Amino acid sequence: MKTDLPPGFLERLQAMVPARSVLISEEDRIRYGRDETEDLCHPPQVVVIPGNTHQVSAVVKLCAAYGVPITPIGARTGLSGGALSIQGGVGLSMERMNAIVDIDERNLQVTVEPGVITQVLQEAVSAKGLYYPPDPGSRGSCSIGGNLAENAGGPHAVKYGVTRDFVLNLEVVLAGGEVIWTGANTLKNATGYDLTRLIVGSEGTLGIITKAVLRLVPLPKETRLMLVPFRDPQKACEAVSAVFRAGITPSALEFMERDAIDWTLRFVEGVNIPIAEDTAAHLLVEVDGNHGDELMRDCEAILGVMEQYDCGEVLFAETSAEKDKLWMMRRLVGEAVKHNSVYKEEDTVVPRYRLPDLLAKVKEVGNRYGFKSVCYGHAGDGNLHVNIIKGELPDTVWKQDLPKAIREIFEFTVSVGGTLSGEHGIGLVQRPYMDIAFDPVQLGLMRGIKEAFDPKGIMNPGKVLP
Amino acid sequence: MKTDLPPGFLERLQAMVPARSVLISEEDRIRYGRDETEDLCHPPQVVVIPGNTHQVSAVVKLCAAYGVPITPIGARTGLSGGALSIQGGVGLSMERMNAIVDIDERNLQVTVEPGVITQVLQEAVSAKGLYYPPDPGSRGSCSIGGNLAENAGGPHAVKYGVTRDFVLNLEVVLAGGEVIWTGANTLKNATGYDLTRLIVGSEGTLGIITKAVLRLVPLPKETRLMLVPFRDPQKACEAVSAVFRAGITPSALEFMERDAIDWTLRFVEGVNIPIAEDTAAHLLVEVDGNHGDELMRDCEAILGVMEQYDCGEVLFAETSAEKDKLWMMRRLVGEAVKHNSVYKEEDTVVPRYRLPDLLAKVKEVGNRYGFKSVCYGHAGDGNLHVNIIKGELPDTVWKQDLPKAIREIFEFTVSVGGTLSGEHGIGLVQRPYMDIAFDPVQLGLMRGIKEAFDPKGIMNPGKVLP
Repeated sequence: MKTDLPPGFLERLQAMVPARSVLISEEDRIRYGRDETEDLCHPPQVVVIPGNTHQVSAVVKLCAAYGVPITPIGARTGLSGGALSIQGGVGLSMERMNAIVDIDERNLQVTVEPGVITQVLQEAVSAKGLYYPPDPGSRGSCSIGGNLAENAGGPHAVKYGVTRDFVLNLEVVLAGGEVIWTGANTLKNATGYDLTRLIVGSEGTLGIITKAVLRLVPLPKETRLMLVPFRDPQKACEAVSAVFRAGITPSALEFMERDAIDWTLRFVEGVNIPIAEDTAAHLLVEVDGNHGDELMRDCEAILGVMEQYDCGEVLFAETSAEKDKLWMMRRLVGEAVKHNSVYKEEDTVVPRYRLPDLLAKVKEVGNRYGFKSVCYGHAGDGNLHVNIIKGELPDTVWKQDLPKAIREIFEFTVSVGGTLSGEHGIGLVQRPYMDIAFDPVQLGLMRGIKEAFDPKGIMNPGKVLP
Repeated sequence: MKTDLPPGFLERLQAMVPARSVLISEEDRIRYGRDETEDLCHPPQVVVIPGNTHQVSAVVKLCAAYGVPITPIGARTGLSGGALSIQGGVGLSMERMNAIVDIDERNLQVTVEPGVITQVLQEAVSAKGLYYPPDPGSRGSCSIGGNLAENAGGPHAVKYGVTRDFVLNLEVVLAGGEVIWTGANTLKNATGYDLTRLIVGSEGTLGIITKAVLRLVPLPKETRLMLVPFRDPQKACEAVSAVFRAGITPSALEFMERDAIDWTLRFVEGVNIPIAEDTAAHLLVEVDGNHGDELMRDCEAILGVMEQYDCGEVLFAETSAEKDKLWMMRRLVGEAVKHNSVYKEEDTVVPRYRLPDLLAKVKEVGNRYGFKSVCYGHAGDGNLHVNIIKGELPDTVWKQDLPKAIREIFEFTVSVGGTLSGEHGIGLVQRPYMDIAFDPVQLGLMRGIKEAFDPKGIMNPGKVLP
């Protein structure tokens, strides 16, 4: 762990932000050196917790002057290690900049600081009849800044789109400390290059997001939720594509292997769902809208499709408590799997119809390399979370063979038009695989963009680009 | 007009593409030197009409070797002069690359070449029960490549999003002739910087789009369309925002001033719509979905809102012929206004609720500078097309004062969170106003991106960036 900052740096830093904003104890640094990515720990040399854009700009200017790396840190729920300070330097935690600045009901927009917890934002706008759909599994603890940095998705992306699709404008502190807005507060914009969407998903390597103007939609008045069991996981995957072809766009369409549900039910107290012995996978299907009768017709049409793929008896959530229970189960799958064993999670994404092929490939590779996997995810988007379970696997196999196996899986996803990550980002842990998705020309363009934004290379160095 | 190409360039060019692909007559060059932007004409020195990506790459490599500018040309329906060869060189018309390569019904995607006419694509996917929503007014004659280059919108953007929101992946020929894909054929992607959305809206200044993978959605089974008259244009604008606040998202919500309709009815033969004497503006409102009864309920709810803003008697399109008639009227407004007088069209966009203020500002500026204006556009998106009419205005006023008046209008749009262009792009004619929307830091980032993609500055030079 690096502990030496340039002489004079810390003193100047401490002089420019309030005392409580600078943490240097080993305990604090270690805490801010972790997110939810495996068991990785890369502490910054100093943690800074700014209270406003002006302070962020001042800290970045100082880092630029001293050549000290700066890594923005959100709510530390990331799954690709994007917020880990792998080159030490300043870890800039945005947690204190957590204001919902303005809910603009007339324009259906909201202006937020990056530290706002996603669920807090959703509940605040919901109270006014509005809806911010992007909802990562960790929505109760992740922050909007991190969602923007990683272009996070979640179950409702299948109907509404990912974080990127809800961003109108961003305030960003650049690598030289300059503060800019990337676009305009408008639904349409054809004015110059799209800096807004270049910053989204750039994982803190191009600048630090200090404010965001997000688009909202009217809150749908009703939802219907069904858990549909299948005997064959392949057929469950095939049914997903068929639903859209039947002309229906569900508001969520989630896939869970049997193990994912079993492990979750063991992990979560007080939730019991009857599962038939021959069930091998589930689809969790939600529709939303303003008219209950219409939603029931959509549910019937969806079930009509599912029946053609040999589904079992459907569990229909009758009350909001039952809906909450099913959603809680889905949201806790990740934690349950993590709780169960050392694991490695991939965030593969393919065109929707190739999902059964991807699932088969994961199992085939697992059989060959000797690992078990638990798969679940956003089937409607072709986004499958592959959790590779260490279990009893020897450390040497885990360390030496696993990267080869992951490479094979990624090579398959790319060969069918897919890519490495659907919503978790590249960060640190997927970086060694970027050559699978991009050739030197594409990577050269990305490096050129990085150079244009951050010529000194101080913004979250060592991330995204190999 | 520039006529001299470097010695040897033309011969090498003619050797690398079929004979019919190179046009050098003055008539041809002038024809390809115009689009729909006012009366501007900037002919290329030579027109090349490539038949495939390989040829595009070869031509770009040749241009790079000789330092000859290259301007991609779509269907020449642009309204900002983006396809005009203002520095001569090669005008690269993509019209021959007009194949619909693959309609992928299983993944709800389509792969197209850039020369496909937007309406042709829409009809081809519609025949398979699928829908490609972006539909600029010129959809019958504009091409997908141009739509991508300008990030075109259209009436249905209000519910479905603009061109940008339907692009999954692009094949692009870069300034050195290299061919890349920008992303993956997936609905979600968090893998590296978003090259796809950087190319969209870059107006041919970063590379030449040679293929696009576009997202499709299920075709809605039903639509309902209403023309709602208002006595007060301001109140019509206010009603727009209120509809969304009432929880309804129409599939189109268009605004037309009285003059826009009157001129169009005179311009279009065989269309007659009764308009009350005291009508000052109309809203054209469409809803779409799968269930007719639900749409009727939405229409009733919308009318309930409109009545609060003093609307007149609603014209409800009962048949598809009536729907077509109303849509034709809306789509021909631009042409009708153009037919009527020398004009200048702006593509202002503001947050939806500020539309009445924008309209008032346009009229106030017009009164002060002595010009008349006809306003119409995509009110649901806050996107107002301001047609400034020359009429009897002296040439000196038109040339000297108009830029000042336009500047005032743009300064207002930016001051309320809006920007210069919602869907027409910056191209040539809005370039002098870019300093209103962006400061030197923002423009510096855009220049850095341009430099990274096109260090020699041969790709559509003189556009977008001031």
